[in-house]
Amino acid sequence: MKRIGVLTSGGDSPGMNPCVRAVTRTALSLGLEVYGVHRGYSGLIEGDMEPLTARDVGGIIQRGGTFLQTARSAKFMTIDGRREAVRRMNDRRIDGLVIVGGNGSLAGAYELHKMGVPVVGAPGSIDNDVPYTDMAIGVDTALNTMTLFIDMIKDTASSHQRCFLVEVMGRNCGYLALVGGIIAGAEVTVIPEKPITVEDVAAAVEKAYVRGKTHAIIVVAEGATPKTQEIADYLRQGTAGFEVRVTVLGHVQRGGSPTAFDRLLATRMGIRAAQALAAGEFGKMVGLVGNKVELIDLEKVASETKKLDLALYDLADMLAR
Amino acid sequence: MKRIGVLTSGGDSPGMNPCVRAVTRTALSLGLEVYGVHRGYSGLIEGDMEPLTARDVGGIIQRGGTFLQTARSAKFMTIDGRREAVRRMNDRRIDGLVIVGGNGSLAGAYELHKMGVPVVGAPGSIDNDVPYTDMAIGVDTALNTMTLFIDMIKDTASSHQRCFLVEVMGRNCGYLALVGGIIAGAEVTVIPEKPITVEDVAAAVEKAYVRGKTHAIIVVAEGATPKTQEIADYLRQGTAGFEVRVTVLGHVQRGGSPTAFDRLLATRMGIRAAQALAAGEFGKMVGLVGNKVELIDLEKVASETKKLDLALYDLADMLAR
Amino acid sequence: MKRIGVLTSGGDSPGMNPCVRAVTRTALSLGLEVYGVHRGYSGLIEGDMEPLTARDVGGIIQRGGTFLQTARSAKFMTIDGRREAVRRMNDRRIDGLVIVGGNGSLAGAYELHKMGVPVVGAPGSIDNDVPYTDMAIGVDTALNTMTLFIDMIKDTASSHQRCFLVEVMGRNCGYLALVGGIIAGAEVTVIPEKPITVEDVAAAVEKAYVRGKTHAIIVVAEGATPKTQEIADYLRQGTAGFEVRVTVLGHVQRGGSPTAFDRLLATRMGIRAAQALAAGEFGKMVGLVGNKVELIDLEKVASETKKLDLALYDLADMLAR
Amino acid sequence: MKRIGVLTSGGDSPGMNPCVRAVTRTALSLGLEVYGVHRGYSGLIEGDMEPLTARDVGGIIQRGGTFLQTARSAKFMTIDGRREAVRRMNDRRIDGLVIVGGNGSLAGAYELHKMGVPVVGAPGSIDNDVPYTDMAIGVDTALNTMTLFIDMIKDTASSHQRCFLVEVMGRNCGYLALVGGIIAGAEVTVIPEKPITVEDVAAAVEKAYVRGKTHAIIVVAEGATPKTQEIADYLRQGTAGFEVRVTVLGHVQRGGSPTAFDRLLATRMGIRAAQALAAGEFGKMVGLVGNKVELIDLEKVASETKKLDLALYDLADMLAR
Repeated sequence: MKRIGVLTSGGDSPGMNPCVRAVTRTALSLGLEVYGVHRGYSGLIEGDMEPLTARDVGGIIQRGGTFLQTARSAKFMTIDGRREAVRRMNDRRIDGLVIVGGNGSLAGAYELHKMGVPVVGAPGSIDNDVPYTDMAIGVDTALNTMTLFIDMIKDTASSHQRCFLVEVMGRNCGYLALVGGIIAGAEVTVIPEKPITVEDVAAAVEKAYVRGKTHAIIVVAEGATPKTQEIADYLRQGTAGFEVRVTVLGHVQRGGSPTAFDRLLATRMGIRAAQALAAGEFGKMVGLVGNKVELIDLEKVASETKKLDLALYDLADMLAR
Repeated sequence: MKRIGVLTSGGDSPGMNPCVRAVTRTALSLGLEVYGVHRGYSGLIEGDMEPLTARDVGGIIQRGGTFLQTARSAKFMTIDGRREAVRRMNDRRIDGLVIVGGNGSLAGAYELHKMGVPVVGAPGSIDNDVPYTDMAIGVDTALNTMTLFIDMIKDTASSHQRCFLVEVMGRNCGYLALVGGIIAGAEVTVIPEKPITVEDVAAAVEKAYVRGKTHAIIVVAEGATPKTQEIADYLRQGTAGFEVRVTVLGHVQRGGSPTAFDRLLATRMGIRAAQALAAGEFGKMVGLVGNKVELIDLEKVASETKKLDLALYDLADMLAR
Repeated sequence: MKRIGVLTSGGDSPGMNPCVRAVTRTALSLGLEVYGVHRGYSGLIEGDMEPLTARDVGGIIQRGGTFLQTARSAKFMTIDGRREAVRRMNDRRIDGLVIVGGNGSLAGAYELHKMGVPVVGAPGSIDNDVPYTDMAIGVDTALNTMTLFIDMIKDTASSHQRCFLVEVMGRNCGYLALVGGIIAGAEVTVIPEKPITVEDVAAAVEKAYVRGKTHAIIVVAEGATPKTQEIADYLRQGTAGFEVRVTVLGHVQRGGSPTAFDRLLATRMGIRAAQALAAGEFGKMVGLVGNKVELIDLEKVASETKKLDLALYDLADMLAR
Repeated sequence: MKRIGVLTSGGDSPGMNPCVRAVTRTALSLGLEVYGVHRGYSGLIEGDMEPLTARDVGGIIQRGGTFLQTARSAKFMTIDGRREAVRRMNDRRIDGLVIVGGNGSLAGAYELHKMGVPVVGAPGSIDNDVPYTDMAIGVDTALNTMTLFIDMIKDTASSHQRCFLVEVMGRNCGYLALVGGIIAGAEVTVIPEKPITVEDVAAAVEKAYVRGKTHAIIVVAEGATPKTQEIADYLRQGTAGFEVRVTVLGHVQRGGSPTAFDRLLATRMGIRAAQALAAGEFGKMVGLVGNKVELIDLEKVASETKKLDLALYDLADMLAR
């Protein structure tokens, strides 16, 4: 192996930059050349890449987003698209790839692996829905951003005796919402994995009012049932006490300078990924298991779904009193 | 004058706490007793108030929102409601009032003044729509919150080559949007005072793409024409280059620890308001004129509308290149 | 067990408040009464404590420091002092204690345990020097505060082509400095566990200059050899290229609203500590092992010293290129 | 005038980047070419400069420091140095200069003006010691950074019943300390313009303790009499109640992303400076007077000293109760 590529794919997450920095500097120190591929698999197919030096990845550890840019590629979902990507890698003499991204991107990495391309993946996703890793790169930053916002919303909620529904990211996975609810001291958390009724939500809000709280916070994952708007409509009909307001955090959750945790995690994962590629350990994902970064078969990652630890849900419930 | 009341009214704004602190400590140092009235005019009508000592307003200078809470009172809009408020003030021997709030609250203050109640107002509003003051308490914090968010959104916008529409507060007044657009380096700013067409917006976005920008930011005031959603729909039909995303900043703009500017402004205004009340200068609002805090007749404040300085709009346009 | 006490002891760390909140609400939900003891072991000896309700610990999850206050007690270091503390607990019918603090405080907890007092400890320390737990409460917040500062210092360092020595906390333990160095992209990190010479430091700075960097950052733990000032003096004599500046982060590292990680860790530890006490599992410390919160014998905690993982040091060195 | 240069000089201040951006884009829109001069007057003497396009100043509005870098030049203090600078400008056909910096840099600008060089200055200084402008670029950001830090220090101060001496920048000018003291709710503020005795400081701290405060904050400007260390030594001998700690904020005060206020001020000043240069209004400084940006003769700026408004001092004193 003489030359490797590194790319970021799917939705961006804070920490992708320090990860690419660590991949690059580690690979260079192992005597490899490194190419940065732009816009994920799209750029791979189009051969949109350039060599990276140690200096090119200086000054990026604190930047949000990904300087390599990212994209979702429909073409890469087809076998023809992937063949084109492999041909292009051969043209540019790229011997191996490090891919930083979420479940879809890692499934793509596994497809390349099956075609014989040496790949190592790293989990980058604010949703924390990648299996076989306790945390993905970006989750901690997203949690802190959410915490900052909910703390701000509490200021105005308390001033007006309001009940705020705060919708956060998470289509299939309630991790962000659940942890966000705990650390923000929410009255109720509504997640896809634990359907509840609007009546349950209303009862919890009612209890908060009766206990004398000056505000109530409900954190709702975007993919949860019932939907944020349904809950708001129901609460507006009936709840005495609090006025009801809705706020949707939106894309801001993907931004921001990576936290200390994400910088360290991304750095450790990037180092391990580059080392694995150099050592011929292909078809793997670097995963955080306890406090160690370990290599997991991409096959397992691509074929399974991460389960949310619902014990946290019961904790949240007890604490909301 | 022996005993005064202080209340916060209307939408909360960051800096109301340091203002109440300054009113309280100044009045105490002038030998007055101070009562904190809860929930704005509603609390005044209900006699919901308690004495404040210097210690009661310790540790609040850094808190967002208002510890006195605030509300909008339909009852106070009626002459009967205001009479009840005045009666209640007499019961509690409150000789004068400092009222911190936006245009509606200050109009209410003027009504009390006409009924013979000694009042002094202070402008608290994140919209900066109170006339006769360069800045209202809370505007600077809201601008910084907006800046923080747009900087975060730029991270993810650049990573994906996206055009972001960011909707900010401002029903009738485009100040937040306009200044927010300048300080965030937005491509276009859409405000109520300066209607433009969706075609104009699209043209500006197109130009940014052609110039090689990796993202485009459009800041839209909530009361602007066209509406955020209309612009998004139009851009999605036609614009080559960028993907389009919408984010609505929402209530988070009211929260957060007050900035240095707002703490200082709120403190200076609170001091001046308490001094004015003690000196018998009634029916006034404290206003920031240049770098001085001056007394303005509430009559003028209540009868006029603040004009936005559209010279800023042209600056924004030139800078967006 | 009917009534328990909770106290924070030693240097404060961000996250002590959410920990006390979790202890309190968990214990209440298990049917116990909870007393908050003020000023650590000093307050225990003086009987300075009061009952805590679920509402008393509302609104504190986002506050830095510890609302119970903390202190170092010379008296408690003596057997007479500890006897007085136990007598006072009996007077107030306190059947067990949760103690949140660092190594000294946990050693004190072990002494009480040997005297027959039911105790459970939780590690609260920004230094991450408590053995048998991957992370102590407060470390993550301190790392993020440090990151924020060093990012700010880099702005001015780059503007002036300067080499900055940043001294951070850590008398015996270089964890904060080492991780801080990695996440801030420092050129060199100087820690107690890995003595180096001023010549080594100067060589690393020289290399950074030659590579074309516009600044150099050196992170120094306060207990390291050589001392910050020695390094600065040496660099000032000889290094071409950069001007040298020193900054000492100081007590600000203990402050700040706890991060998401610390709120969650503190909450999980507080819950487990209260459950352990209620279940009769005494003489233990709650520790983070991998991603689980487990019970560790206080005897082991009190008798051992945490080792720093020096593999991180070599990573830091490779990345600094 | 066909081609202008822009440079930043002296100590860096947050907002220099948006100022250079505004100068550049305004000048370009007026049909001028723009050169960015590196490292202040040093770079001018050495001819270290390069053309700036609208794109070159994209993405810098949120960056702290100055991307043009800055320096203090001993050579430029001599007439020979300045002659060399002018010769170099002629070589590169630079017809005029915008200079962003503090008092020393603006005095240098006035020297160039007297030699016939068309110059316009803009005040960039965190100390707010430039006369004829209410605020210099960078002051607001420095105040907010200071506020953030002191709020963090209060967390730990309250937890331990401590008195903190916080030393902030300000050799000759106590503005930062004075306003910082007001917005942080300090017990005492010690500034060069208002010498007090250590006994006065001790008395104020004593009073705070007696009133039941859980901490005391003393803000000290670095150039004040008595010095921070003297005050600390005195307090440690005598004061009952609080433990005494010292923290020096240091260079971190120069860093950080510019606030909304500084971005807007820097933008307005940059625009006006470029317009003035293009219109032939030379030998001026742009200054904030009330809420207007006006042109002031550099001669007046260079020959006078800014006076601190000591009315603020009395306010601070009254509020500290």
